[in-house]
Amino acid sequence: MINEARTSACHHGRIDPVALAARAGIQSDHVIPYGREMAKIDLAALPDEPKPAEPAGADASAGRSESANYVVVTAVTPTPFGEGKTTTAIGLAQGLARIGNRAVLTLRQGAMGPTFGIKGGAGGAGQARILPAEQAGLHLTGDFHAVTAAHNLLSAMIDNHLHHGNELGIQERTITWPRVLDVNDRSLRHIITGLGAATDGVTRQASFDITPASEVMVILSLATGLADLRARLGRIIIAKGRIGWVTAEDLGAAGAMCALLREALEPNLLRTGEGVPVLLHTGPFGNIATGCSSIIADRLAAQGVGEGGYVLTEAGFGADMGLERFIDVKCARSGMSPRVAVVVVSVRALKAHSGRHRVVSGKDLPEEMLAPSAEDVRAGADNLLKHLEIVRGLGLSPVVAINVFPTDHDCEIEEIRAIARQAGARVAASRPVTDGGAGCEELAQAVVDACRESTGQAQPLYRADDDLRTKISAIATMYGAQGVDYQPAASRLLEAYEADGFGNLPVLIAKTPLSLSADPSLKGAPTGWRLPVREVRLAAGAGYVYAICGNLSTMPGLPSHPAAQDIDVDTTTGAILGLR
Amino acid sequence: MINEARTSACHHGRIDPVALAARAGIQSDHVIPYGREMAKIDLAALPDEPKPAEPAGADASAGRSESANYVVVTAVTPTPFGEGKTTTAIGLAQGLARIGNRAVLTLRQGAMGPTFGIKGGAGGAGQARILPAEQAGLHLTGDFHAVTAAHNLLSAMIDNHLHHGNELGIQERTITWPRVLDVNDRSLRHIITGLGAATDGVTRQASFDITPASEVMVILSLATGLADLRARLGRIIIAKGRIGWVTAEDLGAAGAMCALLREALEPNLLRTGEGVPVLLHTGPFGNIATGCSSIIADRLAAQGVGEGGYVLTEAGFGADMGLERFIDVKCARSGMSPRVAVVVVSVRALKAHSGRHRVVSGKDLPEEMLAPSAEDVRAGADNLLKHLEIVRGLGLSPVVAINVFPTDHDCEIEEIRAIARQAGARVAASRPVTDGGAGCEELAQAVVDACRESTGQAQPLYRADDDLRTKISAIATMYGAQGVDYQPAASRLLEAYEADGFGNLPVLIAKTPLSLSADPSLKGAPTGWRLPVREVRLAAGAGYVYAICGNLSTMPGLPSHPAAQDIDVDTTTGAILGLR
Repeated sequence: MINEARTSACHHGRIDPVALAARAGIQSDHVIPYGREMAKIDLAALPDEPKPAEPAGADASAGRSESANYVVVTAVTPTPFGEGKTTTAIGLAQGLARIGNRAVLTLRQGAMGPTFGIKGGAGGAGQARILPAEQAGLHLTGDFHAVTAAHNLLSAMIDNHLHHGNELGIQERTITWPRVLDVNDRSLRHIITGLGAATDGVTRQASFDITPASEVMVILSLATGLADLRARLGRIIIAKGRIGWVTAEDLGAAGAMCALLREALEPNLLRTGEGVPVLLHTGPFGNIATGCSSIIADRLAAQGVGEGGYVLTEAGFGADMGLERFIDVKCARSGMSPRVAVVVVSVRALKAHSGRHRVVSGKDLPEEMLAPSAEDVRAGADNLLKHLEIVRGLGLSPVVAINVFPTDHDCEIEEIRAIARQAGARVAASRPVTDGGAGCEELAQAVVDACRESTGQAQPLYRADDDLRTKISAIATMYGAQGVDYQPAASRLLEAYEADGFGNLPVLIAKTPLSLSADPSLKGAPTGWRLPVREVRLAAGAGYVYAICGNLSTMPGLPSHPAAQDIDVDTTTGAILGLR
Repeated sequence: MINEARTSACHHGRIDPVALAARAGIQSDHVIPYGREMAKIDLAALPDEPKPAEPAGADASAGRSESANYVVVTAVTPTPFGEGKTTTAIGLAQGLARIGNRAVLTLRQGAMGPTFGIKGGAGGAGQARILPAEQAGLHLTGDFHAVTAAHNLLSAMIDNHLHHGNELGIQERTITWPRVLDVNDRSLRHIITGLGAATDGVTRQASFDITPASEVMVILSLATGLADLRARLGRIIIAKGRIGWVTAEDLGAAGAMCALLREALEPNLLRTGEGVPVLLHTGPFGNIATGCSSIIADRLAAQGVGEGGYVLTEAGFGADMGLERFIDVKCARSGMSPRVAVVVVSVRALKAHSGRHRVVSGKDLPEEMLAPSAEDVRAGADNLLKHLEIVRGLGLSPVVAINVFPTDHDCEIEEIRAIARQAGARVAASRPVTDGGAGCEELAQAVVDACRESTGQAQPLYRADDDLRTKISAIATMYGAQGVDYQPAASRLLEAYEADGFGNLPVLIAKTPLSLSADPSLKGAPTGWRLPVREVRLAAGAGYVYAICGNLSTMPGLPSHPAAQDIDVDTTTGAILGLR
């Protein structure tokens, strides 16, 4: 009960970063203050940088999971509203602290662009918030800006190389390195650069992605230390040239990029509204990238909480996408292995998976979805059951967390409990947004019990030495697909990757997060479909191949009434107004 | 001699930001740490935000100059190498401290883009450096990134407005708001955006400037507080629309921009290598903008050093460009008035102004320029004399600072002393780079003496209610021009600005900094030339009109061997290598 006294004492008040770090088991001399309420953690706090494990989980049995309890929060297939994974993770961390446990939460930093678009930051809501909220939703300590700068330095050096004679023989049409900005700006999706005079560069088609889609962001999240970061930056492939793949190292850019990213590799220490330490660090996209926070933050948290403590982290989207990558890419690299996965589900999600309601992004829930209907919930149960199967298939013990909304009905919540219990899973209702940690004690206890009893070990879905198609097939089968269809160009590229020594990399499937299938309109647990691999790409620095199975936007746009129009500053108090 | 003991004690060592702030007269509770060696200063440290003075110096008699000595460092017309204004300012600050004075230095932050191009950061050199050097040359505390983000949010909202129906009737061809990035990337000078499908925005010509060229950067430097910042952001004009000028306020962007800039308005506290406090804050371009550091930093420094203390600041380029703007734009707004201007000159600069040598950017000095020649120095004296005349014309007392390079000869230095004395100016030789503060004691004493004796008062070159052409003529006459020639379109726009109520704004002349004239090849003090006003533009948020008289690049490119290729990180120690 040590944490409880602490957390109630500091509710809504500022906490000195050094005191906060102490709660995370981090010594004061490793705390680097950034502003009055945040800090970065010196990498000296970590033991020596380990030799990176082989890709694809060969070394997943290593790591510190024997001591700290490493728990990952995932979800069913979400509606466009999201099912409250982040708020559940925050509430759960607070709940664990309330019932007497050491807990540290590791989360992705939210991008700033969307803050000014439709949705708010990834900083939680209500009684399940990250503080300081204003910084968490905006610049934080500048890490995203550092990624933008490092990424665009490489972009400039590519075009500069073309301009100054193209010694490496870069084939313009093969350039895969865009530019990035952390802004929602659809006009930058497809552009032509280098117009003007001969002194104004080489004219070519180009594009901007939003910063979380940068390979540099993934590299930052997967790096196990500064040396690993430097090496991965050098391996980034930007095009084909006269003598083969051209890398950032070939252009002499990787060292300067690393210099720009040095501080960004240090995790950011913030807190929940109830004073639980949060390491908010890196923010790779969930669809074309890993969607996980950093390896370094997780290692730091595990070391800090020590034996019997809890490291809570989140994986992107549903268990099909986020959790699989978490295990097959992130944990394969970090050597850390969770035993328990919290599967967030909501009444509205299962109702939507019944196929009886149409939920549209940016619009209110349909009125009839708010009427009590245990039957609708039951009709959508297949989706939850499939995710439980996925969790178990990855070697983890599931705990179902029902994220209760005020409009939910008791009969619906009981229905989910019954479904979960029938499937042999632990289940708890939680109310993180309305009740904070107090609303998540049942869930916290379920997680503690699951960690105590679970003897399992995360199991990768495939082996590193499986070939790329075998890996893709393994993932497709897990989704419930009958098979995989490849576009001819994708097939040829996969062969080229294998021939060039990239066959041992893991594979990410970039598909819609709104269905277990590749078709966002298919709800529940679709069967009888095939996974269409339209295109494949190589992220040699991050260390994976990704297969694109659908239309993906890597640069959002703003709506007709952007959230930015409602944001302002109280110039007397300095408070930021209207930040959702 | 208080400072001397302190400075020698901390040479090369870290100084806690709170202890450093104390040297600048700033209380500990106003110090917001950013990393281990830097801090931002809470705006609460300043007295209430003053009502901004009328433009064009109407209120230049107000301010705190009675108490602190406000000294501005300017220069003769520079060679492409620069004459060492920043290193002289740093050395002078150290010299003032060594001879027993309280001194604070206020400087512009250098852009990051050029760090990876040809030249190093603006962080000084040798024994005249800003520490921590790595941060000063790269992200610092993220202010430039905040400017980039605020600027590009407005850009995105403009294109988003066009995309969603263009309710304001923005005329695309009149849009003057580019995008910005802090990277040297010539390929972004002229681009086409909004290609692709109908969902990918409106197709139009667009461009990127480097971040210091952003009007947002100038606004940040000229804002007297948060309320003034907010108001100026709202006044930014981005295009013509159905009912006239369209502003950032019309688009609903100014509040969110202000939220992004809130922390960037707080000055950054760093130090010189000898431990003198430096407020490094904002970095507007020297040619199309003011080229001065922030008003807020100067006010904070003046308050901190108090009566008898010294606030040293720098103006961009030579006295013709930088100093005039410093007086007519910055001091007119701040109400602060310097009495002494340090005019930095070098042997090589006067030799170049003799017209007998050709100095080329990026190449070594010609061999024959290194031979002793007092005669060459004398032949270039007109340039120095003209700058002394300009300084006096602005009401200031000049102190000539000879920045001595190791290759200079005594006879040449003595020649400059003689020229300056003949012109009735104080003069001192200084060796900031090789000898630090110890090499600037003579200069420091000359500045102390000049401040003690000077009874003058800065005099604006024109009155706010002069019309725009009268203002342009006043500046042209000061340069030595015989008259001004206007392109017809520029004339019409000036009339439109007057008609729309912008006639009371000050005027910036954007011309080459490499000559007193508009032709960079004319050295010395050219006569018999006319100032060609090719184009005029309005920076309604920053609060000035600018007249473009030549070809100006607002987005640099990288050289064939970018400095980035020599930069790397020692992954064992974390040190950044090769940063010039």
